[in-house]
Amino acid sequence: MQEIVLEKISGYSIDFNSLLEKEIIVKGMIQNLRILSWGAFLILRTPEYTIQTIIDKDTISVPPEQLMVESAVAVRGIIKKANIKDKALYPRDFEIHVKEITVISTPAYEVLPVDTTKKEMVVHLDKKFDLRPLTLRHPRERAVFKIAAAICNEFGNYLSSTGFTRICSPKINSTGAEGGANIFKLDYFGREAFLAQSPQFYKQIMVGVYGRVFEIGPVFRAEKHATSRHLNEYVSLDFEMGFIESFMDLIKVEANTLNAIFERIEKDCGNEIELLDMKVPKIERIVTVPFDEVHEIVYKKYNKDYRGETDLAPEEEKLISEYGENEWNTEFIFVTHYPSSKRPFYTMDDPEHPEKTLSFDLIFRNLEITTGGQRLHLYSDYMNKMKKLSMNIETFQSYLQAFQSGMPPHGGLGLGLERLTAQICGLSNVKEASLFPRDINRLEP
Amino acid sequence: MQEIVLEKISGYSIDFNSLLEKEIIVKGMIQNLRILSWGAFLILRTPEYTIQTIIDKDTISVPPEQLMVESAVAVRGIIKKANIKDKALYPRDFEIHVKEITVISTPAYEVLPVDTTKKEMVVHLDKKFDLRPLTLRHPRERAVFKIAAAICNEFGNYLSSTGFTRICSPKINSTGAEGGANIFKLDYFGREAFLAQSPQFYKQIMVGVYGRVFEIGPVFRAEKHATSRHLNEYVSLDFEMGFIESFMDLIKVEANTLNAIFERIEKDCGNEIELLDMKVPKIERIVTVPFDEVHEIVYKKYNKDYRGETDLAPEEEKLISEYGENEWNTEFIFVTHYPSSKRPFYTMDDPEHPEKTLSFDLIFRNLEITTGGQRLHLYSDYMNKMKKLSMNIETFQSYLQAFQSGMPPHGGLGLGLERLTAQICGLSNVKEASLFPRDINRLEP
Repeated sequence: MQEIVLEKISGYSIDFNSLLEKEIIVKGMIQNLRILSWGAFLILRTPEYTIQTIIDKDTISVPPEQLMVESAVAVRGIIKKANIKDKALYPRDFEIHVKEITVISTPAYEVLPVDTTKKEMVVHLDKKFDLRPLTLRHPRERAVFKIAAAICNEFGNYLSSTGFTRICSPKINSTGAEGGANIFKLDYFGREAFLAQSPQFYKQIMVGVYGRVFEIGPVFRAEKHATSRHLNEYVSLDFEMGFIESFMDLIKVEANTLNAIFERIEKDCGNEIELLDMKVPKIERIVTVPFDEVHEIVYKKYNKDYRGETDLAPEEEKLISEYGENEWNTEFIFVTHYPSSKRPFYTMDDPEHPEKTLSFDLIFRNLEITTGGQRLHLYSDYMNKMKKLSMNIETFQSYLQAFQSGMPPHGGLGLGLERLTAQICGLSNVKEASLFPRDINRLEP
Repeated sequence: MQEIVLEKISGYSIDFNSLLEKEIIVKGMIQNLRILSWGAFLILRTPEYTIQTIIDKDTISVPPEQLMVESAVAVRGIIKKANIKDKALYPRDFEIHVKEITVISTPAYEVLPVDTTKKEMVVHLDKKFDLRPLTLRHPRERAVFKIAAAICNEFGNYLSSTGFTRICSPKINSTGAEGGANIFKLDYFGREAFLAQSPQFYKQIMVGVYGRVFEIGPVFRAEKHATSRHLNEYVSLDFEMGFIESFMDLIKVEANTLNAIFERIEKDCGNEIELLDMKVPKIERIVTVPFDEVHEIVYKKYNKDYRGETDLAPEEEKLISEYGENEWNTEFIFVTHYPSSKRPFYTMDDPEHPEKTLSFDLIFRNLEITTGGQRLHLYSDYMNKMKKLSMNIETFQSYLQAFQSGMPPHGGLGLGLERLTAQICGLSNVKEASLFPRDINRLEP
């Protein structure tokens, strides 16, 4: 048995101001290396910083030519004031004048298969994904997933602060929540099981327990199309809440949550905002448009006739976004009252117009990022709806217990993390907002 | 198009002190109802409170006999000071004297299949799980998963505050990370795919990107045993960090993280602590014991001979916990240097004793809750190890890119949320710390 004192471990934050002109040792990976006649600029990547270090070739024992991008090194040097322009660097007002470099490890590649030192990587999307372990080290890629992390963290923290309880629901399910054929099957000890298309049933059940719940977790859709809008596995930010007056309560909670996320990004991700040249949005007021009206606007203003279609076409999402920016001065359009025929069985129909639902999508910068709505909450309503749709009620028995046990009026929504990240960061393909995207052709890395 | 002002939505926190003797409306579910000659005590469950309301039968229009446990109601009444003893209630220094009750919805069951109003539910474990939508509404069950939520939240927040970046890695994988046959298979568009046994490969890849990363997500183990220690799907709290000096750095980070979690529980979960009669632990100092020494202690002290076994038996985990409490005054025992033959290929062997690894488990109150260790970080070391183990290197090509691209010395660990929750809350079966447990016999609810 050995016993040691518990201490905090260091190596993350540096108080540059108080260490000015003093010597420090920093460990990190070589992000970039520019060799010049007198020595080199070596950019060091640590968990918090991407900092410039300056090497005078006469003062260090390792010649700069023997250093290599993506080597792990320990740098000993003096902190100096600096005035750096490169937006990929942080901090930009300090640098380190190197006295000694120790190489800890080097890449096995003789030449890295992609040059990650250029401002933009010149690489085809497929190769970028094939080589994720390397290409994710590029500053722009790292910035994207710092934004994604901030979204996840704040989604949880904001909702926790307003009475929502975090839940973790199972991803191996005995039934599909969203219906349709887009579901992955697996063998579960001899039984047929399914991967969760959404945490829908579980978050409803948990509204009966806690009243307000949220979940951050993977969902799986066996959709066969390979588009810039789809992933076969993505991260869903879900919440569900009881005692709503109408689905407008859900829209309000979503708008407040998104604003909290945007404020968090403004506060914590200044470097990423600059590097990606991001325009961080803000929801000033809530704009809702009925589904049918979107068809009408697109027809009248853009002469595209989708009237009668039971869903919005991607083109319509783009056009209504353009219209919203121009005519309503908003980037956020809540499209309401989707047709009942296109919404899952648990959706509440509008009592005044039963062919429409008390549901909504949120369209943000040309793309639907949320589907939500009020749910049925009475057992008898489920019975009627499921019989009408000729569903096998037996299969849903354990879910239906929630309604047999009593449930308040409730609703909720799912927000796609990758779609939100992509739209905030200005990426044209949602796959670029997934660390390791899964599509019909891609299961690796 | 409709436009509304964005406002915060209310209905969560109540400022009881400033509303004393004033009228409020509170919506919630009836947690309990005790009918007496003069009226009733009605316990109302809201997202934040489980509050006592007092009904005088002469002043309300709905007779108490027509109310039902697990109905959703709106209560209008006056806030009064109170002095309540029942630990399942919160607050206990205020109550509501009811003027009016409106029933919003009622259960469909005529009699609830389990009585959730008793201090302890009298129900067999299997039935408790079968009826989760109802049984989770019991105060003790709700307390357990409030603790689980606090653990998840603080794990993320503490690590974020010390330079760790949250990642979300895919759960549909092309290879298994942990080896062995305990892996779920699925058909992925005609290809064989696997459910993630752990985020191991991805968090290592991401150390190359961010230096320090964490993930909170489901993992899947197709283990065929049905014990009180196993789940086939559980939530893994993972971190991985670069530039470690040794695995002691990982142990320090884990101890600090656990202490942050324990402090958060103390701070935010006072009611749950009282209700579950929890003893919230604290790691005062780090106690490590080599694997072989555990065998020796168990043999010498308890006369049980497991020497030569390459893993610890559940009985040994119990005995060494007992020993640790008595002899070392700690509930946390870091068992180090597990045999190489029982650790996955990516584990770093001890250079001085290659049959042992630079790895550890954490045993807390009789149960292993963590496995961690230093990993190989040189591509050449992976090549040698994988050849030695006759592994198919081709299969791991995309993972191995990380090491070809250069990696710092690193390591990490996985902490089982359900196991940690169960041990903190004093539950005898880890399944009781899973909202919807999955085992060889259970896929529902």
